[in-house]
Amino acid sequence: MRVLFLGDMVGRSGRTAVWQRLPGLIRDFRLDFVVVNGENAAGGFGITEEIFRATLNAGADVVTTGNHVWDQREALVFAPHEERFLRPANFPAGAPGRGSGLYTARNGARVLVSNIMGRIFMVPDLDDPFRCVEEQLAACPLGEQADAAIIDFHAEATSEKMCFAHFVDGRVSAVIGTHTHQPTADHQILNGGTAYISDAGMCGDYDSSLGMDKEEPLNRFLTKVPRGRFEAATGPATLCGVGLDISERTGLAEAIAPLRLGPRLEETIPAFWR
Amino acid sequence: MRVLFLGDMVGRSGRTAVWQRLPGLIRDFRLDFVVVNGENAAGGFGITEEIFRATLNAGADVVTTGNHVWDQREALVFAPHEERFLRPANFPAGAPGRGSGLYTARNGARVLVSNIMGRIFMVPDLDDPFRCVEEQLAACPLGEQADAAIIDFHAEATSEKMCFAHFVDGRVSAVIGTHTHQPTADHQILNGGTAYISDAGMCGDYDSSLGMDKEEPLNRFLTKVPRGRFEAATGPATLCGVGLDISERTGLAEAIAPLRLGPRLEETIPAFWR
Amino acid sequence: MRVLFLGDMVGRSGRTAVWQRLPGLIRDFRLDFVVVNGENAAGGFGITEEIFRATLNAGADVVTTGNHVWDQREALVFAPHEERFLRPANFPAGAPGRGSGLYTARNGARVLVSNIMGRIFMVPDLDDPFRCVEEQLAACPLGEQADAAIIDFHAEATSEKMCFAHFVDGRVSAVIGTHTHQPTADHQILNGGTAYISDAGMCGDYDSSLGMDKEEPLNRFLTKVPRGRFEAATGPATLCGVGLDISERTGLAEAIAPLRLGPRLEETIPAFWR
Amino acid sequence: MRVLFLGDMVGRSGRTAVWQRLPGLIRDFRLDFVVVNGENAAGGFGITEEIFRATLNAGADVVTTGNHVWDQREALVFAPHEERFLRPANFPAGAPGRGSGLYTARNGARVLVSNIMGRIFMVPDLDDPFRCVEEQLAACPLGEQADAAIIDFHAEATSEKMCFAHFVDGRVSAVIGTHTHQPTADHQILNGGTAYISDAGMCGDYDSSLGMDKEEPLNRFLTKVPRGRFEAATGPATLCGVGLDISERTGLAEAIAPLRLGPRLEETIPAFWR
Ligand SMILES: [Fe+2]
Ligand SMILES: [Fe+2]
Ligand SMILES: [Fe+2]
Ligand SMILES: [Fe+2]
Ligand SMILES: [Fe+2]
Ligand SMILES: [Fe+2]
Ligand SMILES: [Fe+2]
Ligand SMILES: [Fe+2]
Repeated sequence: MRVLFLGDMVGRSGRTAVWQRLPGLIRDFRLDFVVVNGENAAGGFGITEEIFRATLNAGADVVTTGNHVWDQREALVFAPHEERFLRPANFPAGAPGRGSGLYTARNGARVLVSNIMGRIFMVPDLDDPFRCVEEQLAACPLGEQADAAIIDFHAEATSEKMCFAHFVDGRVSAVIGTHTHQPTADHQILNGGTAYISDAGMCGDYDSSLGMDKEEPLNRFLTKVPRGRFEAATGPATLCGVGLDISERTGLAEAIAPLRLGPRLEETIPAFWR
Repeated sequence: MRVLFLGDMVGRSGRTAVWQRLPGLIRDFRLDFVVVNGENAAGGFGITEEIFRATLNAGADVVTTGNHVWDQREALVFAPHEERFLRPANFPAGAPGRGSGLYTARNGARVLVSNIMGRIFMVPDLDDPFRCVEEQLAACPLGEQADAAIIDFHAEATSEKMCFAHFVDGRVSAVIGTHTHQPTADHQILNGGTAYISDAGMCGDYDSSLGMDKEEPLNRFLTKVPRGRFEAATGPATLCGVGLDISERTGLAEAIAPLRLGPRLEETIPAFWR
Repeated sequence: MRVLFLGDMVGRSGRTAVWQRLPGLIRDFRLDFVVVNGENAAGGFGITEEIFRATLNAGADVVTTGNHVWDQREALVFAPHEERFLRPANFPAGAPGRGSGLYTARNGARVLVSNIMGRIFMVPDLDDPFRCVEEQLAACPLGEQADAAIIDFHAEATSEKMCFAHFVDGRVSAVIGTHTHQPTADHQILNGGTAYISDAGMCGDYDSSLGMDKEEPLNRFLTKVPRGRFEAATGPATLCGVGLDISERTGLAEAIAPLRLGPRLEETIPAFWR
Repeated sequence: MRVLFLGDMVGRSGRTAVWQRLPGLIRDFRLDFVVVNGENAAGGFGITEEIFRATLNAGADVVTTGNHVWDQREALVFAPHEERFLRPANFPAGAPGRGSGLYTARNGARVLVSNIMGRIFMVPDLDDPFRCVEEQLAACPLGEQADAAIIDFHAEATSEKMCFAHFVDGRVSAVIGTHTHQPTADHQILNGGTAYISDAGMCGDYDSSLGMDKEEPLNRFLTKVPRGRFEAATGPATLCGVGLDISERTGLAEAIAPLRLGPRLEETIPAFWR
């Protein structure tokens, strides 16, 4: 089964590019399931209900988030009603919305998607991501309730990302890192059959600082004195993510490869999709 | 001119792979200049004089480091005498050793190499990397004393890496990130002509946590209680780095592409070297 | 009932002063219960079994710890067998030893003592201290199983300390902060009857950096280059802690005042003990 | 000569209490010089020009700040014109305003006041505070251009505060810590004659979280989900600071003692002022 995961959409540039390209990708490559991280879709900070819906309309099955999930306060309102909207599962019990869900892919497979946040260098400091995933997999094991399991692990430190992936290796289809906004090239299938990449990269303008206009971030580094607000960069976006091929028999990964489409990075499409 | 930059060698597995492969790479691709980051070469922690020399013997022109530079105390002794050994330049004045140097490449070009450390999430907290590079470029501008300028920017946060690169864009040949030990796929030539990649990746065993045996790091994440020491992983290493093509006329970059050689990641060699 | 809490003993100087003075304090002021934080008792790093026993012999009813608890590896061995040794309760389930206990004071009162670690700026990142204390108080509520409840909240940030104390205000006898090694003067009885102080201070040499010889810490701040090890300071120690008067009827605090004995700080003994 | 230093005024409650009590304190105790930290005076976040002026009118000679200095954007406008307004001196060169000044006390003494920020756990990451103070003392040594020298060291970690004080011991009259908003009881005169306290405490409502209404900070600790804004607490403020007696001959400290006035903490006035 073919899955596409797109990293953090940043601002108008990023979300527009996703909305424009995603329907064609789904059609051309007969994708069964699509996950998009939307934590920076609204000007770089959070996501609105309108953007969330438009992303579903473009073909996403699930929208995941991260530390920026509540930057737009309206997310607190729509999160509880939207099955396809995920915030990190390791928020303390009682947080609005949900951290994981079981969805039906276009090929009929039941796909567990979970959004979990790391703790190293991250704010806010959520509950233990390792225990969180352990509980989720106990409740919904791959091969029983779920035919595939995809985790958006939203974290900064590569050590935490690697150890998290080793911890669930053989028990989920894929661990896809997000948050750093730069795609990594370390995609591999781990020993137990779980696909892994440290970071999917962002969908945004790569002539920027993390998709944000670089002027004010650079000013802060140089002077430590704020001069203005952080604004999303407005140049054309490059889409970054990964394509997965997941065994319909075992739920484990048969292939993982990056997808990059746009003006700034080396373009690539998973060869096993062709 | 052809430059190869190899990311953090980790442990015996990583350094041995570099020593074995580097002479062939230099010969086969007629490389003019080679930089290798060696901060984790001795069991993951620092570098010894013997390892440093063996790395030069294998063909490295310069060995750079980072936050782990003094983990092997003997580095404090040999650093001051070794022109080709760099520690981060933004250590306070008076630190042992040097942070940059001007070297002659095999094509006769004078190459400025600078090793600078970021500050976000990094220990120890060194001097301002932006001011540091500003001073270095004032003292040794590209196109005057230097025919090429390569910066190993050893840092964690992608925002700091991107802003640093934009800051020196057009004034150096390349900004190569190190420290996260995972290669990124965001290599590009910035608007001003500077080649950039967020992280070169490591030269080490990618079935690991940052090149270290994954058992104890994973134990720490799970239990928070130390059970043993951190040891370098012993599986076969994958070499990660970037190839650069630098204009002999302008000193700016004409091409940047990843190099990955080994069993775990997708292998690639810069196409423009063939 | 009269309780004495002594802050982090640091090194030989600190522990020796505690051992020498504690018996006299217990006798002279007819103390019912004594808690001592011992996380830095062994040269500044952790605690040995011998030091732990000697501290009990000097009159401590319970020895608490903090982030340094496992610095001496032997603590992993004796912790599980020692009822009167506490490590932070919010270590993940399965950690060696215990995080709280119910003890009988010399006046017959049943005293719950709990050792909990904060998360802001702290390593390792343990479980949520707020949820941890909630569970403890549910299992052993003040006025039912316990006649008094004392929490050693080992944390860095004053915001977390204050919020933690407000959270349990009226439900425990006292929240005593430790870890910063400097006594605060903000002791007060909160609105609900819980005694509070941000930090008890350390029992150690105050002509130092946190009880450690100041030469190497200062060297690190100045040069960022290690020159030697951190050693405990050897000058005479000042004892720092707080005295509590806890109602035998309600278990809430009737008085809190600092105790400081030694050569460097303004000496004081709780007036309500005389 | 008699100096009063008052810690961070927080919100209306804190600043009003300072304005009401300060004139009487100056008159009753014949104070020669007064420094007030104002970084949280405007609702907890920064300071306005009007508040700054009212604080001078109440008798402050200098208003210092810290990490919150630019929270009110108007501070960027008035800082450059106000000699008696200090922001941390270790902002990069070119920052608005000034970090130190030489002022004439009511007894005619020339008093150097310097505001310097620590780096451990602090944002933004400013220049090296140790080098900063070294340069200031080289330019304006105690006993030559200055008859007294008072440093507001705005920092989180007690290790950095202690080491900073030891570094300048004998070269300044006093190092007064600010930022943690809880007064410490570790005031002492160091071996070289410099008065020291880790933190002066705040001037604000101590039934709070750092002077802020405790509801939202506590909500964030419990749920990690924002519910509202941080607002200054509105209960009556307790003034916290220290009194200094500085030798007019040597510029070194002869005495340091806390001042605490208000409803929540143990009240005290320096005995040597009576
Ligand atoms: Fe993001
Ligand atoms: Fe994020
Ligand atoms: Fe490294
Ligand atoms: Fe590093
Ligand atoms: Fe301690
Ligand atoms: Fe501690
Ligand atoms: Fe403050
Ligand atoms: Fe502050």
